[in-house]
Amino acid sequence: MNDRFLRACAGEKVSPVPVWLMRQAGRYLPAYQAVRNQTDFLTLCKTPELAAEVTIQPVDILGVDAAILFSDILIPLEPMGIKLTFLEGAGPVLIPPVRTMEDLNRLRTISPKDDVPFVLETIKILRQELKDKVPLIGFAGAPFTLLTYMVEGGTTRTFLYTKRMLFEAPDMFAKLMDLLTEVTISYLKAQADAGAQAVQLFDTWGGILSRRDYLAAVKPYVSRILSELKESGIPRIYFVLDGGHLLEELKDLDAEVIGLDWRMDIKDALKRLGKEKVVQGNLDPFSLFLPEERLKERVYQILEQGREARAHIFNLGHGIMPAAPPEKAKLLVDLVHQLS
Amino acid sequence: MNDRFLRACAGEKVSPVPVWLMRQAGRYLPAYQAVRNQTDFLTLCKTPELAAEVTIQPVDILGVDAAILFSDILIPLEPMGIKLTFLEGAGPVLIPPVRTMEDLNRLRTISPKDDVPFVLETIKILRQELKDKVPLIGFAGAPFTLLTYMVEGGTTRTFLYTKRMLFEAPDMFAKLMDLLTEVTISYLKAQADAGAQAVQLFDTWGGILSRRDYLAAVKPYVSRILSELKESGIPRIYFVLDGGHLLEELKDLDAEVIGLDWRMDIKDALKRLGKEKVVQGNLDPFSLFLPEERLKERVYQILEQGREARAHIFNLGHGIMPAAPPEKAKLLVDLVHQLS
Repeated sequence: MNDRFLRACAGEKVSPVPVWLMRQAGRYLPAYQAVRNQTDFLTLCKTPELAAEVTIQPVDILGVDAAILFSDILIPLEPMGIKLTFLEGAGPVLIPPVRTMEDLNRLRTISPKDDVPFVLETIKILRQELKDKVPLIGFAGAPFTLLTYMVEGGTTRTFLYTKRMLFEAPDMFAKLMDLLTEVTISYLKAQADAGAQAVQLFDTWGGILSRRDYLAAVKPYVSRILSELKESGIPRIYFVLDGGHLLEELKDLDAEVIGLDWRMDIKDALKRLGKEKVVQGNLDPFSLFLPEERLKERVYQILEQGREARAHIFNLGHGIMPAAPPEKAKLLVDLVHQLS
Repeated sequence: MNDRFLRACAGEKVSPVPVWLMRQAGRYLPAYQAVRNQTDFLTLCKTPELAAEVTIQPVDILGVDAAILFSDILIPLEPMGIKLTFLEGAGPVLIPPVRTMEDLNRLRTISPKDDVPFVLETIKILRQELKDKVPLIGFAGAPFTLLTYMVEGGTTRTFLYTKRMLFEAPDMFAKLMDLLTEVTISYLKAQADAGAQAVQLFDTWGGILSRRDYLAAVKPYVSRILSELKESGIPRIYFVLDGGHLLEELKDLDAEVIGLDWRMDIKDALKRLGKEKVVQGNLDPFSLFLPEERLKERVYQILEQGREARAHIFNLGHGIMPAAPPEKAKLLVDLVHQLS
């Protein structure tokens, strides 16, 4: 098996540098579209054979060094008591939004084996099928990110209900964070037990908070999850989008790998993050619209800066765009391998 | 006249610390609503007596140390050849979006005296009416921020067309940035000539770019505007939202004051920005939903950190929310004055 990714997670400087792409299984790939056209998004997530099929596609098509489970961070919220709908082109809708103590008291924790067996089954199929290829990454949304979707009832520009809950009803906020933390721990442990060889915790909206609020209202829950996962013995990646102002807070998190978004230079980030963590990232996903020579130059620059880190896993700084040209994604993977 | 704000802009540590609030004239104020209910938003911007009236409201109601012209950053785009509509609750719509060289070639530069006389007239009225009160701040959108609205045709989550233009058609991008830079220079110079006593350049979307792209595609234009304004002799404030990763790039900008959003601690920002600039900011606007004691504690912390700067102008880290309680905004201004 190609174990470059796992060796880099363990802190080894690996050549060539391993690369995978956030949302690498997805709409930009015609092979994905072909599967997706047969079914709706949620059914695809819940049908292990299909989810496994699209998970493997980018491994075969692009030659990435890791597979990541095809699923959605909102999946564990359904058995908690939320009706989840994905509207084409408009993002998820969560009903009812959780805004009062009554709403919150109606929610329940989950038992992954009973409530999301399809995820664990997908992982088992994937481990069989990926045996001689690459490692499999499991994932979950971080509690604050999940909370924003629950409280807003979907995507939002302002995070009005989330921030008002944090500032006006901190006890309710903490209770919901506790519940989501418990759910996330059992969900990720179940993924590890089913065979996930690494996990990534996605904190897509953690960066909307000030350093002070992140420290008080997000970090303790993230820490708890990461520490609880230690016993699983698999590497833990924490990715917080737009987290440039939080780097000093990420230093002491119990995670092997910190994912960086595209905004900051890796060299700047290392000054504040220190050199103990492996870093993952951080090409602007839109770089796939650059002509080859300019893409190559950017890949080279990121690899150069990544050399200063303890170890480097190449990735995009956010999910790949549905409009990205698949041949450029393939070129990117090749460039990373050739240039490192 | 209360000249605390201007003295702080000049680098003087002022006690009490001056405070104004981004979007301080706006929907959260019942007095504003009363005016706004008589007319639509664009007509309000274009009617000097009314625009002056709502500009002065927060000076009288809150006791802020500066007034800021009531207008919108998109106002100068209309005479360039863009049809501008504000849909209630849905943000601006710009027709046609500028996506091809043909679209771009149809645009023209503006002559502020002929094209936006109402803005200059509003400033003249305000200088008369504010004579014994506080200084008047003029403002404009920075070219990249204006470009995103033009290219996307409104607000956006992904900035797809903007980033594709930057990466796929850099010459078109540069040409549009040049035009917007020229427009912004003449617009701000005209505001200064009409009597604006300081100007703020709002780069609301500059922070979506990596440091590298900001340096190449945004900073040169911002620099040009700021340098051209030097001869006006009034202080220049540059505010880039979500610009934590850009602080090192802001050090050598020809602006007296750098506005910080709420994400970063001022103490962290100063380490990277240096001590030559006056800093403005940076309370999370949602803090106005905190109970009084917790609000007070945050104001105190920001003032403490602000003492480390060359000089400090207190502000929110982004515009005040329409849902903010006006009595909390008043309390905030009082707290800043009492605690500093």
